[in-house]
Amino acid sequence: MSAPAAARAAPVPIAWDGRRLHALDQTLLPGRELWLELDGPRAVVDAIVRLAVRGAPLLGVVGGYGMAMAAARADDEDELRSDAAALAAARPTAVNLPRAVDRVLARALAAPPAQHAAAAARNEAEAIEAENLAAGQALAERGADLLGGARRLLTHCNTGLLACGSRASGLGVVAALAERRDDLRVLVCETRPLLQGARLTTWELARMGIEHELIVDAAAAGLIAAGEVDAVVTGFDRAAANGDVANKVGTYGLALAASATGIPLVVAGPCASIDASLPSGREIAIEQRGADEVRQAMGEPTAPPGTACRNPAFDITPAALIGALVTERGVAQPVNAATVAALMA
Amino acid sequence: MSAPAAARAAPVPIAWDGRRLHALDQTLLPGRELWLELDGPRAVVDAIVRLAVRGAPLLGVVGGYGMAMAAARADDEDELRSDAAALAAARPTAVNLPRAVDRVLARALAAPPAQHAAAAARNEAEAIEAENLAAGQALAERGADLLGGARRLLTHCNTGLLACGSRASGLGVVAALAERRDDLRVLVCETRPLLQGARLTTWELARMGIEHELIVDAAAAGLIAAGEVDAVVTGFDRAAANGDVANKVGTYGLALAASATGIPLVVAGPCASIDASLPSGREIAIEQRGADEVRQAMGEPTAPPGTACRNPAFDITPAALIGALVTERGVAQPVNAATVAALMA
Repeated sequence: MSAPAAARAAPVPIAWDGRRLHALDQTLLPGRELWLELDGPRAVVDAIVRLAVRGAPLLGVVGGYGMAMAAARADDEDELRSDAAALAAARPTAVNLPRAVDRVLARALAAPPAQHAAAAARNEAEAIEAENLAAGQALAERGADLLGGARRLLTHCNTGLLACGSRASGLGVVAALAERRDDLRVLVCETRPLLQGARLTTWELARMGIEHELIVDAAAAGLIAAGEVDAVVTGFDRAAANGDVANKVGTYGLALAASATGIPLVVAGPCASIDASLPSGREIAIEQRGADEVRQAMGEPTAPPGTACRNPAFDITPAALIGALVTERGVAQPVNAATVAALMA
Repeated sequence: MSAPAAARAAPVPIAWDGRRLHALDQTLLPGRELWLELDGPRAVVDAIVRLAVRGAPLLGVVGGYGMAMAAARADDEDELRSDAAALAAARPTAVNLPRAVDRVLARALAAPPAQHAAAAARNEAEAIEAENLAAGQALAERGADLLGGARRLLTHCNTGLLACGSRASGLGVVAALAERRDDLRVLVCETRPLLQGARLTTWELARMGIEHELIVDAAAAGLIAAGEVDAVVTGFDRAAANGDVANKVGTYGLALAASATGIPLVVAGPCASIDASLPSGREIAIEQRGADEVRQAMGEPTAPPGTACRNPAFDITPAALIGALVTERGVAQPVNAATVAALMA
């Protein structure tokens, strides 16, 4: 299926037509641009689990629309609650997903009868998307203010429009900075096992005309130590109250390298990704994914059949290694419980 | 071609029949075991450049045999010197290669007429292989002594029989330790871009019956921080006089993670990999390889066509981050100019 009209201009990953959610299948990029038509909460869960849609901010928006579709179809409150539970549990690490699901559920339950509930749920989901767009604009500019002096950036995974549907994460900051200076250069970590950096971030940077070079993840630390990077910019999937963050596996290693060389690690994301209910990163659940992702690359086997694997999708970076945490409401710098609390106040 | 008789019992990567060098094509493992017949120095250069044979200790042995074949065929000293230059320059980072080439060249030049030179060169090349075997036995036992208390190891790239033709590097230490304790577990970094960990180390560990799990390179730091590793064990491609080492790209990041968590990084290799003529790691040439290795994985494209890449094959780990440097002559611990000089004395 080709892109919905609303999605043709920019690499936005979703389009809501008021009844159904159209989503670009990110597992097929950059080779193929296939739009999925998600017609209910089960289809949304499936798309999330297999990473056709991914990225913490986008998971919030998509979870909201999944609930809007659930509210339009559910026969009773039990069914709606069951759909909500399935959506919220589709992936465990980003807090945006359960938070958006709970928010739309609460709005629907507060607005009987059923036809009112469906409209209220749809309005709430659309509000979540609008807030995400506004948050992206604000935080990208704040991040660009902070990083104005940086010319050579390094980024990990994909934290762009594809991950957010807005500028609400690391690559949004890069995009805003590129509008201010035309000499920006970006090193892109390929981000094994699923290669979101190689497949998605290079694709977005090329569309934006931002100069970039792809590297294997293991090359980042040495290039940082060699003085080739002014700042590391990533997103975060969930931040705890003390400023520890969970982000794509490999972020902690980048943080160690940045710290050892004295350059900042800047993490960017919406306040919707901050979970003040968790005291520290130790309490954040790390998603463990299947072995086939590790023992294959682009569908090709890399190791002897049956090789055992460990596949944590995220790691925890302690606040002390983070130079700044950028949100739409402001910047925590240094990153600690007090500065994070000030953002959320 | 099937394996030469000498190579059928164990996964040794080369077999010298007195006239020609047979080499297992490591680019095709683990899917296919193809033996190459290298009949002269040009064939050896080609096999080295495309990584059909690789690993610092093995490059020394293979370079020696390349020179033995050159001495048997060269029409004059100019041709022999030209072959030596091509062999020594086939890859820049491991010092074993130019050192072995120079050694066999010197021996051949000191033994005219030509038929004597050829015999002298062959004897010298065979001596280099015998020394490498002896070094492997000695250093693997020293490493196992040092690491006797470690049960959960993490390793990078391939530093086993395939890389050395002996136990003269990191996986040789692991093998010796596994003979002493049957509860050993090894986390194997896949080692992008060429996946020597996924393809080769898992294959060797499975043949040895050592329990192991494969991980993506970016997962190592987080697993170390989570307390899942007792020691990191790698090889080294070249060590400088102060104990800085060049090793497969990613080693420096592992060193940072090990140091941050308080576990040792142990690097193991023969004294033939130590280059005391270089004061520090800053003087070690880092091989920059082609972009296609990065924008492909197992031959499949990972990024949009034409994406620019950086592809350093090695990085530098400073001595201060290395817990111990194990050689056949002894262990430098701590690693510094004095302890390295003592090994070489």
